[in-house]
Amino acid sequence: MARIDINCDMGESFGNYTMGRDGEVMPYITSANIAGGFHAGDPHVMRETVELAAEHDVGVGVHPGLPDMMGFGRRTMDATPEEVRDYVVYQLGALDAFAARHGTSVQHVKPHGAMYSMLSQSEDHARAVMEGILEVDPDLIYLATDMHIYEVAQEFDDLRAVFEGYVDILYREDRSLIVEKQMEPKPPEEVVERFVSIATEGTVETATGETIEVPAESICVHGDGPNAVEYLEAIHEAVDEYGIELVGLDDLV
Amino acid sequence: MARIDINCDMGESFGNYTMGRDGEVMPYITSANIAGGFHAGDPHVMRETVELAAEHDVGVGVHPGLPDMMGFGRRTMDATPEEVRDYVVYQLGALDAFAARHGTSVQHVKPHGAMYSMLSQSEDHARAVMEGILEVDPDLIYLATDMHIYEVAQEFDDLRAVFEGYVDILYREDRSLIVEKQMEPKPPEEVVERFVSIATEGTVETATGETIEVPAESICVHGDGPNAVEYLEAIHEAVDEYGIELVGLDDLV
Amino acid sequence: MARIDINCDMGESFGNYTMGRDGEVMPYITSANIAGGFHAGDPHVMRETVELAAEHDVGVGVHPGLPDMMGFGRRTMDATPEEVRDYVVYQLGALDAFAARHGTSVQHVKPHGAMYSMLSQSEDHARAVMEGILEVDPDLIYLATDMHIYEVAQEFDDLRAVFEGYVDILYREDRSLIVEKQMEPKPPEEVVERFVSIATEGTVETATGETIEVPAESICVHGDGPNAVEYLEAIHEAVDEYGIELVGLDDLV
Amino acid sequence: MARIDINCDMGESFGNYTMGRDGEVMPYITSANIAGGFHAGDPHVMRETVELAAEHDVGVGVHPGLPDMMGFGRRTMDATPEEVRDYVVYQLGALDAFAARHGTSVQHVKPHGAMYSMLSQSEDHARAVMEGILEVDPDLIYLATDMHIYEVAQEFDDLRAVFEGYVDILYREDRSLIVEKQMEPKPPEEVVERFVSIATEGTVETATGETIEVPAESICVHGDGPNAVEYLEAIHEAVDEYGIELVGLDDLV
Repeated sequence: MARIDINCDMGESFGNYTMGRDGEVMPYITSANIAGGFHAGDPHVMRETVELAAEHDVGVGVHPGLPDMMGFGRRTMDATPEEVRDYVVYQLGALDAFAARHGTSVQHVKPHGAMYSMLSQSEDHARAVMEGILEVDPDLIYLATDMHIYEVAQEFDDLRAVFEGYVDILYREDRSLIVEKQMEPKPPEEVVERFVSIATEGTVETATGETIEVPAESICVHGDGPNAVEYLEAIHEAVDEYGIELVGLDDLV
Repeated sequence: MARIDINCDMGESFGNYTMGRDGEVMPYITSANIAGGFHAGDPHVMRETVELAAEHDVGVGVHPGLPDMMGFGRRTMDATPEEVRDYVVYQLGALDAFAARHGTSVQHVKPHGAMYSMLSQSEDHARAVMEGILEVDPDLIYLATDMHIYEVAQEFDDLRAVFEGYVDILYREDRSLIVEKQMEPKPPEEVVERFVSIATEGTVETATGETIEVPAESICVHGDGPNAVEYLEAIHEAVDEYGIELVGLDDLV
Repeated sequence: MARIDINCDMGESFGNYTMGRDGEVMPYITSANIAGGFHAGDPHVMRETVELAAEHDVGVGVHPGLPDMMGFGRRTMDATPEEVRDYVVYQLGALDAFAARHGTSVQHVKPHGAMYSMLSQSEDHARAVMEGILEVDPDLIYLATDMHIYEVAQEFDDLRAVFEGYVDILYREDRSLIVEKQMEPKPPEEVVERFVSIATEGTVETATGETIEVPAESICVHGDGPNAVEYLEAIHEAVDEYGIELVGLDDLV
Repeated sequence: MARIDINCDMGESFGNYTMGRDGEVMPYITSANIAGGFHAGDPHVMRETVELAAEHDVGVGVHPGLPDMMGFGRRTMDATPEEVRDYVVYQLGALDAFAARHGTSVQHVKPHGAMYSMLSQSEDHARAVMEGILEVDPDLIYLATDMHIYEVAQEFDDLRAVFEGYVDILYREDRSLIVEKQMEPKPPEEVVERFVSIATEGTVETATGETIEVPAESICVHGDGPNAVEYLEAIHEAVDEYGIELVGLDDLV
């Protein structure tokens, strides 16, 4: 039976500013990547998001960002590996304190935006962050958005890593993603098709119709995309039919 | 044998800005109250300060502040009990992640500046923070700067609380402290005398020469005060003579 | 012929976070209170909002807030009169630089949220801010939300002040406003009725049906309220009928 | 008679954090580059620094930085030309409001740290900033740290630009500067020699003893360097002897 996790970025509201539809999306996912207060989120939003995740038995992960609220953590900055590592450790710990009251702890780490890009482009940065994570808790899972990062993670004997795929945006043949500034709505049946294909075959059809390997154990859905809830509903209807089991990251690795 | 802890605020540097003489003071204390990044401190400073504390076998505590770097956390703000609680939980968790790499965890909580004042003036705020602390880790110790807060802490069956005294500034007869904008240097022998008196008798002489009760199990020293190191050296010389044992908070309660 | 200004808070988006419907509301108002980057807004949002105001020939005012983005400037803080003054001067100047490219300059100042409350409660704070404003530009207009502040402003011979009224929320008999956490929609004809009454008679009917004096020369409309655009359209239809002229603050005083 | 300006970065304190020796240095310089609150400085520090400059008849310039207090504006970030332009305009306007009370206005703009580097590396960024400056006030002077930026500034018919030289650190033969992490003290007579050489000949001796052209009309001195005051005193003693006149930027161009 195919087993797969669904993860989604959550908790990106800040103070009086609302972002995302966390309440609607949470019931359909198995792992929540929760903003850590640097690019988005704040202590109160973190508490509420962790609580919402706990209600729906969703695994809590930290979605750490660069200290750039004005740029929503989407601008790379010339920070050292050690600086980035410490930003991750800080936000990871902060979230863990909110998880503690639910008798749980942070399950996984998925760097956000420009921080993700920086780790992907610099192995020194990636390794520093992974070492930092292991020092905090060797049970943490690194959720890897590209194969390069995944391979760096594999170098660490004791770091659990999970590779994730995407179904609401399209792949190129080289397995890079066609990021859309403003996400275009897509036919839910095509989103489901990609989901099932990745979950059961480990492959997906690209924008140009080729079939490529995407050996993902988790699928990322953009919670703020158009029709996110519709996609998720359609996916949930399909999983039974195709004999796919939705499981949290912690049960996968 | 009298047993007492010495605590000091630490880790208040920020980015390129240096504050305090942490390296000189750390060897003489038993508990470090480390800024959590809201009123002072940053992830890198936190890592370094925790490391310095670990080197000297000093207990790590969080010194959480209000989100007001520009005002150094010294301006009360009309934040709700829940907001303040979440600021404490966030900073506590962040510090804990840095402690983890030394195989330890945060030992105590001592709110900074205006946050301390707010808790002292509002039992709702104080209780919210204490409940938040207990949810994170029931082994945490609340370091209480005044008797009112200490009594609120006592209401919680499972919250360990320690009352602290001061020796480098003077008391009034009502046990309030005469805070000095610019700390005046004092004769080290008088600082030592107050230290010994609190440690062995639980009393101290006020500015006007009265003797009052200060049942403290920890003494706070201002690390950025003039002669802080000189005071601490003098105290260390005196403890043997008077049969006082310096112990961490964790060994006291 | 009755002449009145319509002002509205604008430019409260921040980075990736959107707030308000500035584009829809701007065509209907005569004065825009633009956030200065402390409680809301950022340099880019300020530039765009000033540009939008210029397109619609709307007077540009600064809506300065306390340095508390996380609390949206709605929490009073124990800042000194001098600190608050300097926050106003800073944000005022910043906005003025964006106005310069349109050949204009900041026309008025209307403190936001908790900063407004602090000035209303402390004449020292109010006077410090007004002195600061006069030092920057003696032609600036202070938009006064309550009569107390208006009277303090009147003490300054050279400070132009305008008293504002409200029509989309209700008054109590003592001319205080019944602030609604979540603004309730109201019948547009009643909003128009209050508008006309204030504009032509200087009076308004309270929540309990009494008629009180509201000698306002400007009306504030909540741009983020439900039906804000509907109210503004209805008001624009009514002004011709009642012989009311909509004019900017600068033409009033 | 040779005429030259001396500029120095000022106003980099922040809240409770002190940086630099502004009070000691200000009497010896003719232009102050004042931090704008993004990488350093705050509204209160800006007011005080402008006041200090006014007392000593020193020209007020803005020293705008990237929004990165934690990194002291020393980390380049992937911000667009428009974003950087708006950061400059914002900080420029803010400072101008403090200058207004002294009957003056901002005289010049000198980007700080990583912002300077970004403009130096990207003509698009440099041009966007220069256009932004001209929109605010066409009388502003751009203080150019390298020849590339200076040449970009020259493309604007109406932008006054001044090239600056350095005397307390050394040049390479290609006119690049040997930046020292921790500035080494140098013999004051050598600092004076370089100052006189640039001021009177437009040349300077490099670290390797070559003579290169440095056609500077302003000399930058690091106010936080060791012996900064000593250098400045020595320079002031030398200017009379060598018939050099110290003049503000405004009198130069």
